[in-house]
Amino acid sequence: MKVWNRRFSRRKEIPLLERFNASIAADRFLAAAEIDASVAYADALQRSGVLGKTEAKEIGQGLRRVGRLLDAEIDLSAYEDIHSAVELLLTEEIGEAGKKLHTGRSRNEQVVTVERLYLKRRLEEGLGAVRKIQYAILGLAESEPDLVMPGYTHLQPAQCLLFSHYTLALYWQMERGAERLRETLHRVAVLPLGSGALAGSSVPLDRSLLAKQLGFFRISENSLDAVADRSYILETLFAFSLLLLDLSRFAEDLVIFSSREFGFFKLDDCIATSSSLMPQKKNPDFFELIRSKAGSVYGRLTELFIAIKGVPMSYCKDLQSDKEPLRRGVEEALDALHVFSVVLSYIEPDGEMMKKRLTPDMLATDLVDYLLEKGIPFREAHGIVGSVAAFSQQAGKPLDELTVPEFQQFSGAFAADVAEVFDFGRSLRLRRTAGSTHPDEVQAQFRRARDRLAAQA
Amino acid sequence: MKVWNRRFSRRKEIPLLERFNASIAADRFLAAAEIDASVAYADALQRSGVLGKTEAKEIGQGLRRVGRLLDAEIDLSAYEDIHSAVELLLTEEIGEAGKKLHTGRSRNEQVVTVERLYLKRRLEEGLGAVRKIQYAILGLAESEPDLVMPGYTHLQPAQCLLFSHYTLALYWQMERGAERLRETLHRVAVLPLGSGALAGSSVPLDRSLLAKQLGFFRISENSLDAVADRSYILETLFAFSLLLLDLSRFAEDLVIFSSREFGFFKLDDCIATSSSLMPQKKNPDFFELIRSKAGSVYGRLTELFIAIKGVPMSYCKDLQSDKEPLRRGVEEALDALHVFSVVLSYIEPDGEMMKKRLTPDMLATDLVDYLLEKGIPFREAHGIVGSVAAFSQQAGKPLDELTVPEFQQFSGAFAADVAEVFDFGRSLRLRRTAGSTHPDEVQAQFRRARDRLAAQA
Amino acid sequence: MKVWNRRFSRRKEIPLLERFNASIAADRFLAAAEIDASVAYADALQRSGVLGKTEAKEIGQGLRRVGRLLDAEIDLSAYEDIHSAVELLLTEEIGEAGKKLHTGRSRNEQVVTVERLYLKRRLEEGLGAVRKIQYAILGLAESEPDLVMPGYTHLQPAQCLLFSHYTLALYWQMERGAERLRETLHRVAVLPLGSGALAGSSVPLDRSLLAKQLGFFRISENSLDAVADRSYILETLFAFSLLLLDLSRFAEDLVIFSSREFGFFKLDDCIATSSSLMPQKKNPDFFELIRSKAGSVYGRLTELFIAIKGVPMSYCKDLQSDKEPLRRGVEEALDALHVFSVVLSYIEPDGEMMKKRLTPDMLATDLVDYLLEKGIPFREAHGIVGSVAAFSQQAGKPLDELTVPEFQQFSGAFAADVAEVFDFGRSLRLRRTAGSTHPDEVQAQFRRARDRLAAQA
Amino acid sequence: MKVWNRRFSRRKEIPLLERFNASIAADRFLAAAEIDASVAYADALQRSGVLGKTEAKEIGQGLRRVGRLLDAEIDLSAYEDIHSAVELLLTEEIGEAGKKLHTGRSRNEQVVTVERLYLKRRLEEGLGAVRKIQYAILGLAESEPDLVMPGYTHLQPAQCLLFSHYTLALYWQMERGAERLRETLHRVAVLPLGSGALAGSSVPLDRSLLAKQLGFFRISENSLDAVADRSYILETLFAFSLLLLDLSRFAEDLVIFSSREFGFFKLDDCIATSSSLMPQKKNPDFFELIRSKAGSVYGRLTELFIAIKGVPMSYCKDLQSDKEPLRRGVEEALDALHVFSVVLSYIEPDGEMMKKRLTPDMLATDLVDYLLEKGIPFREAHGIVGSVAAFSQQAGKPLDELTVPEFQQFSGAFAADVAEVFDFGRSLRLRRTAGSTHPDEVQAQFRRARDRLAAQA
Repeated sequence: MKVWNRRFSRRKEIPLLERFNASIAADRFLAAAEIDASVAYADALQRSGVLGKTEAKEIGQGLRRVGRLLDAEIDLSAYEDIHSAVELLLTEEIGEAGKKLHTGRSRNEQVVTVERLYLKRRLEEGLGAVRKIQYAILGLAESEPDLVMPGYTHLQPAQCLLFSHYTLALYWQMERGAERLRETLHRVAVLPLGSGALAGSSVPLDRSLLAKQLGFFRISENSLDAVADRSYILETLFAFSLLLLDLSRFAEDLVIFSSREFGFFKLDDCIATSSSLMPQKKNPDFFELIRSKAGSVYGRLTELFIAIKGVPMSYCKDLQSDKEPLRRGVEEALDALHVFSVVLSYIEPDGEMMKKRLTPDMLATDLVDYLLEKGIPFREAHGIVGSVAAFSQQAGKPLDELTVPEFQQFSGAFAADVAEVFDFGRSLRLRRTAGSTHPDEVQAQFRRARDRLAAQA
Repeated sequence: MKVWNRRFSRRKEIPLLERFNASIAADRFLAAAEIDASVAYADALQRSGVLGKTEAKEIGQGLRRVGRLLDAEIDLSAYEDIHSAVELLLTEEIGEAGKKLHTGRSRNEQVVTVERLYLKRRLEEGLGAVRKIQYAILGLAESEPDLVMPGYTHLQPAQCLLFSHYTLALYWQMERGAERLRETLHRVAVLPLGSGALAGSSVPLDRSLLAKQLGFFRISENSLDAVADRSYILETLFAFSLLLLDLSRFAEDLVIFSSREFGFFKLDDCIATSSSLMPQKKNPDFFELIRSKAGSVYGRLTELFIAIKGVPMSYCKDLQSDKEPLRRGVEEALDALHVFSVVLSYIEPDGEMMKKRLTPDMLATDLVDYLLEKGIPFREAHGIVGSVAAFSQQAGKPLDELTVPEFQQFSGAFAADVAEVFDFGRSLRLRRTAGSTHPDEVQAQFRRARDRLAAQA
Repeated sequence: MKVWNRRFSRRKEIPLLERFNASIAADRFLAAAEIDASVAYADALQRSGVLGKTEAKEIGQGLRRVGRLLDAEIDLSAYEDIHSAVELLLTEEIGEAGKKLHTGRSRNEQVVTVERLYLKRRLEEGLGAVRKIQYAILGLAESEPDLVMPGYTHLQPAQCLLFSHYTLALYWQMERGAERLRETLHRVAVLPLGSGALAGSSVPLDRSLLAKQLGFFRISENSLDAVADRSYILETLFAFSLLLLDLSRFAEDLVIFSSREFGFFKLDDCIATSSSLMPQKKNPDFFELIRSKAGSVYGRLTELFIAIKGVPMSYCKDLQSDKEPLRRGVEEALDALHVFSVVLSYIEPDGEMMKKRLTPDMLATDLVDYLLEKGIPFREAHGIVGSVAAFSQQAGKPLDELTVPEFQQFSGAFAADVAEVFDFGRSLRLRRTAGSTHPDEVQAQFRRARDRLAAQA
Repeated sequence: MKVWNRRFSRRKEIPLLERFNASIAADRFLAAAEIDASVAYADALQRSGVLGKTEAKEIGQGLRRVGRLLDAEIDLSAYEDIHSAVELLLTEEIGEAGKKLHTGRSRNEQVVTVERLYLKRRLEEGLGAVRKIQYAILGLAESEPDLVMPGYTHLQPAQCLLFSHYTLALYWQMERGAERLRETLHRVAVLPLGSGALAGSSVPLDRSLLAKQLGFFRISENSLDAVADRSYILETLFAFSLLLLDLSRFAEDLVIFSSREFGFFKLDDCIATSSSLMPQKKNPDFFELIRSKAGSVYGRLTELFIAIKGVPMSYCKDLQSDKEPLRRGVEEALDALHVFSVVLSYIEPDGEMMKKRLTPDMLATDLVDYLLEKGIPFREAHGIVGSVAAFSQQAGKPLDELTVPEFQQFSGAFAADVAEVFDFGRSLRLRRTAGSTHPDEVQAQFRRARDRLAAQA
């Protein structure tokens, strides 16, 4: 059911076309935002003298009743979109006055106003979800402040790390993610209402007041730009994509680290799943699902990017294809963020297994440093220790069990004090730069992390 | 509600986790395929001696009853996925015997069996839709067999074309699209059932018979590959993406050619839309929507591609994220194809407007050919005509109004017979290669196109 | 040639493997940044006491000489990557001291330091290019301050616009684009150097001083995060993608508007191209190329996004695949931006053609407003004018030629003063909202635009 | 330097524009194909009577000389593209006759002819590379025909597999990949030459003979379609993307399985790499690089997909942006395939480590089968064994060490013969379906795999 298609009557005979052209199945999720924006618009019409006080009040109350109808999930399939549904239901509710609501307003500006209002709210929700993840990370890191774990590069043992340092790496990724959400929010919460179809409205609306009433930060600068632009959706989807990309990597770690062979994490039963066939299984389903979700949101971004590319710089119907990627992208992202903050609290590091994997070859860099202090240039020292490591492997003798004479085969600079190198606590304290895994530096990270969270609270 | 999670009890306390882990909201569309596959599996179990004849019959009938329940859209939100929903509902329907249906079967193989069955059917539907588009193209092309239109490159006038030649270009694109759908179907309709969780089934199923019963072409070769692979979905989405990409280009033409300024097409009211604000509007919404849809399907392909990349070569829960892109991608593609075949029959070429745009500069290449026949090498002839064209533009005098002396300023090879060049019918007949816009060649195209369609019918 | 692969000797026999593993073909573009970062690192090593003053000076001078070698495009194909090339060439230049440069430094941190330095510079270049585009837009808009043009939605005539208003729409898109580049720059220009392989460096470097010396805004907070993260590249590519997406839409307009049929723009010969076959052609190649470039950058973003997804949260060799998308994406984007600012100055609006296309049906919305002032509710007024418009079309009589009695067939509210509606200047002045095409509002836009540019200069 | 731009002189002043418009940097890789196609075209012109025998011979020989110049890597930066470079160099070589080569030919058809010829050759190369990978897989699988390894789902132990079965899974993925390459080749090797700019050629060329001479399978059907279509590139890139996606998963397995913690594979030194800082490292760089490459090709596909979307159905300059993704996508894919076939021969399974990880819980499904044979319905049996498994875990007592009474606590159906279950050889033989890991079935796979390879040789 369309509001204005008096001239177009044969369409009805062709339900497929009606359905394809309609967006009601895809845009119903905008109902709450549509009601709020229409209420504010009625107020603005009243301030502009288009509506009388009584009419405006009647419309406002009618819209709230329509809102409750929509909450009750009535069937809307006969309407073209949520915007015309609201207008028509309003007119059913309150009669003639309802026909005045769309005065000086265009569907084009209405759609983007409501999308922006919706996104503003979901971005704020996203910021809250990220903050919860950050608290969960701090909780996990603080639960084992002194635990030492093997650090990997290329999934091969590299150097030892404080478990808390490892965990805090994710904290800073989330911090950047939150920063991007906030910046995006700044460009999303800009009011397009009052832009008309493309040229501006014939009603002298006070757009700044409207913006304030709806919680927008400011008003758009150019009416044509206002109805044509969709970059605010793309930005939102991208900001969420990057968050999920970061989580996909941590999830990969968790899947591998909770394998039987690594065994660094124990998963609470409530975040593991069994198998329909193999009864012994305990699978890290949640981390696998989260690993996959970066694609869900990025795919939606791609979808919309393609749809918009090369479309004339104005409103075109192509832009209607933004609803589905917007809704699903944002919902999937928020779901994943919420779930991640929960599951993070159900994993437990297994200190014993980590300690078991701390092997002396992970101290090879410290051996290089040992030689540096004896005055050997870095590139030579690196070569010498490489040969020592190869010898140790071939001999099947761990580095810390090599004798001093064995060491000395490779360089006369080795002496009895080489034994001191084989100490993981010492190794941590050898990292001396800001941001390193040195225990003092990790404490500093904790402080900065807590300060940031406190500043936002 | 899960079938097997006896060990995992706390999950229930966390509805968010339940919902995130469940796929019932995303996989319900597989219900019909799930019922059919389970019926076939029960038969196979009976042939293998696992079920008695009565049990098997009971299960088969029970499954059909469950199928009718699902058609009636009962609420399934308490189930984990469509597969466990069917098993549990079956057990409710028929009691103990229901608990035997999953014997020797794994969720892993069940999911891919059902997805492949679903896709097989939708690919067949897609082939039908493409054939309808091809018939619509032939209808449009045949409606005006002799109409001449300006051909463009870079959206600038190039050479004249038969309207039917222009339209048939799309026919061959659809022909390639159908070919790709058929090849994809060949790899989709391969039966994985009998692969177990990854190692094969302990029940000695006759997989080839099962394949035949379900309409599959053959059986998979390796059980691990069978449960891990998702390329059949990616291929399907890609095949549909390319079809929509072709349509996006024809849609672009239609949007531009039905603009007031070009005016080459008249749109029936039933495929045009008005505006919520501007009552004079008659917008080509359907072509704009179709132009945008290539992104919808390609975005889903991207989504799934990312989800699968780097996942271990086995079943992992990441693969559950295939449902949403599979369903939406296929549905959006089929919708767009169906709609396109309909709207194509509601456009009408405006021969007058096309003729008006056939201007003599579009015969400049024929002028070059004229000079070639007078023995001037191509590159020189091209240069001469370039200068003539520039002169014509600056003088504001169309090419066909230039005098012979004016022509001769640029080359002595021009003579009085140059006037013959300015004839669009002659220009068409100058194209002499197979596949050209020469009327005889276009007739040959028609014959080949009709033969192909007939061969498939 | 690798710096450290003493243990790995057979590789050399397999040139294909060497080439595949090497990144020198892809990372040579980082040479200047590598030299600058290494010079700064040598200074830091000296401040930390690792290098003597003379050694440090020798290294610094040697690096500058290596830089000049690299500028001279010497063959580097024997090296593994630009980083080892610089170290080895340095050692060739200055002998032993060169072997100390890598003390306490890891390839992992070096790569990201150099990438960030490179990107910082290109983002600054991008900001300059966008500013140039904005100046060109202002120039174009100011060249015809009073010109009225038809505004389109769905490529169908909608309402009239000031040409300057139309043009300024792009200004604000570029303004958002610049904002995104600046925010991205803020996260790119963060120093990772001092993070070691993953755990921090054993040399007590003053990282903040290093950051200052290299022009970075601050230092990274966590060493593991510092070497693992690549989101700064993704953000950069996305910021450029959105700029090009906006340009793809303006380019689409320019291609269509400079078609013979629209004729709104004349292209200077220097931005049009002819054809190898058809000598009369004058094609808008530059706008077509720019229209296509959004894909070039977004494709690179996709490439890198996929490569990073699901990689363990640490340095893995997968990350080496960032070079090609980084370089090509940034270069293609900057090229397109630079070119766009140039070509924009070679287009000329054709006021006559625009005026010719200003038809009375584009004032239908003003007719609705006319009825609103006579007290008819919006939705009814819209319906009435829709019927009038349909009548006008069927009768082949423009709206402004209808008689008052003809108007009155549709509503008694029409009176003789309806004639006043048919005035495009009046129509512009009817748009009353901030940001509208009302001449005063457009002047206000100009002021705000100039103020912003002045503030950044 | 352009061949035809007599009218366009100011361009030269603007080198940036020249460079942006030119494609010579991006299309030089097409040189060999351009020479071959032009030689064939000269022959065709001679057969059509446009060229005399001597002229044609002169042109043919001249083109071969130009081909040798191009092989010698002369600087071409002054030319617009490889096509005009060849024509201009030819004219330099042989004088006037060179100016006739382009008679009746358009750049539009020339570009696609040459691209298709290039792609045909690279697809054939790709087919050879896949065959080599398949041989390498067979070699690896046959090297350890009886080795049993733990099979995983969700990276958690599932059931045991023959190592050869595991490896053959990849064989069938490659088989599908080869099938897709062949189908793509079928649509790529179609000759567009003779299509002119869009309407066909004025020279009566025998296109079928031309096709045969150049090794194409058939000729295109419609001249407009022929110059506008780029789906053959998209198909090629997609076919390669799927191959690399399959490899990304096997590479993930290899990275994880060659970790110290799993230890299932030993990498030869020649396919492992050390670290610039940590001398003990032995990283699986090649598998990480291969894991990342799916993105490289898919990104290029995305790039081109976006560029083409919504472009009018004719030649537009947007299509020039196909060169870079075509070349880089194909080259990166072929490199990765070639490298993979090499590195596959440098990995060695570690049977001892695999055996160590074969634990009795991986036989839980066999315990379920045991109960099934005792007459317990599947779903109950699954539940019982789930409880047994939980008990075993809590008691810290492996399943095969539980006493019969302990088993009987969970079901009276357990008896002394339960001990027979704990035998991995028996477990393999319990898989009874075609395509399973049963040793006989794996032998059958080997036979089918060898037959297929033999059939293609």
